[in-house]
Amino acid sequence: MSDLAVALLHYPVYNKHHQVVTTAFTNLDIHDIARTSRTYGLSRYYLVTPSEEQQALVQRIVTHWDTGWGADYNPDRREALSIIKTLPTLSDVIEEMRQTTPLPLKIIASGAASRTGAVSFRTMRQMVQQDKQQYLLLLGTGWGLSDEIFEKVDYILEPIQGIGDYNHLPVRSALAIMLDRLLGTY
Amino acid sequence: MSDLAVALLHYPVYNKHHQVVTTAFTNLDIHDIARTSRTYGLSRYYLVTPSEEQQALVQRIVTHWDTGWGADYNPDRREALSIIKTLPTLSDVIEEMRQTTPLPLKIIASGAASRTGAVSFRTMRQMVQQDKQQYLLLLGTGWGLSDEIFEKVDYILEPIQGIGDYNHLPVRSALAIMLDRLLGTY
Repeated sequence: MSDLAVALLHYPVYNKHHQVVTTAFTNLDIHDIARTSRTYGLSRYYLVTPSEEQQALVQRIVTHWDTGWGADYNPDRREALSIIKTLPTLSDVIEEMRQTTPLPLKIIASGAASRTGAVSFRTMRQMVQQDKQQYLLLLGTGWGLSDEIFEKVDYILEPIQGIGDYNHLPVRSALAIMLDRLLGTY
Repeated sequence: MSDLAVALLHYPVYNKHHQVVTTAFTNLDIHDIARTSRTYGLSRYYLVTPSEEQQALVQRIVTHWDTGWGADYNPDRREALSIIKTLPTLSDVIEEMRQTTPLPLKIIASGAASRTGAVSFRTMRQMVQQDKQQYLLLLGTGWGLSDEIFEKVDYILEPIQGIGDYNHLPVRSALAIMLDRLLGTY
């Protein structure tokens, strides 16, 4: 297991009009990111939202696959969802990680835009694989993480560039590519 | 633009009990794979199903984003979906590609299992980037492409290995990783 965890933030993120909002969960973000994260050996996928109603909703979905009929129907899905933990804020995630593992914790923000001082995938891969620290990779829903997040993290990961000008990866696909670049071997 | 196209087959694929079936579209497969394919510069994403009802359903979704209120609301989505074409069978896809482009066409099958004679990502990347041929990358829904497909393609792509034994990538995430390994630069 690598010492990398992922957090999908539903607040503070931008909406289409560059306003800071709380977005709603999508069922696919829960399943796809859990399955991809589990495939790459991650032990934790944090779903972050201040909404208690939304937290309860995620819990209901995870429980369905953990102890409901879904557990028998698809045990692989159950194993993937077992790495999910829902917490109200990024501070709660950081506190939990610090309490769970004594290694120094470094926070990495990701997004589609180029930003000054961003770290390349190759450099970040070397850092993550050195294993002397633990890392938390932040993903934003909606139109991306708010600037206040980028201002307080330890590292900003360079954006994924496709081919040509069009660059609108779903967050689920972007995460898959990021984990493969940081951890994949082939 | 690279000469690579993607086809998502809803037949012939396996279900959980290893029976060959026709699966139903999922809305997310349409959107996510279109956005990822477009980001990596692909000009065509084929959705393959023999079901006329399902073909009509996809067309309705694409039209919503092309000329319905979705076109104004999210023009990026519209551009992604513009690369979608729905056809009844793999043979129809092959015929269309041959008629559209004179380059020799090579078919690549992908799946989660290891198979004899599979081509590595590094080798396939070199082939795809040489640009003297056109390639069609096949993805299966459900529990994967049927054996008959693997028997008649030109190449089988090595499976994506994560870290550890768990290996259950969603097809949307697998495609993102494949395109990045074949075409991505970083």
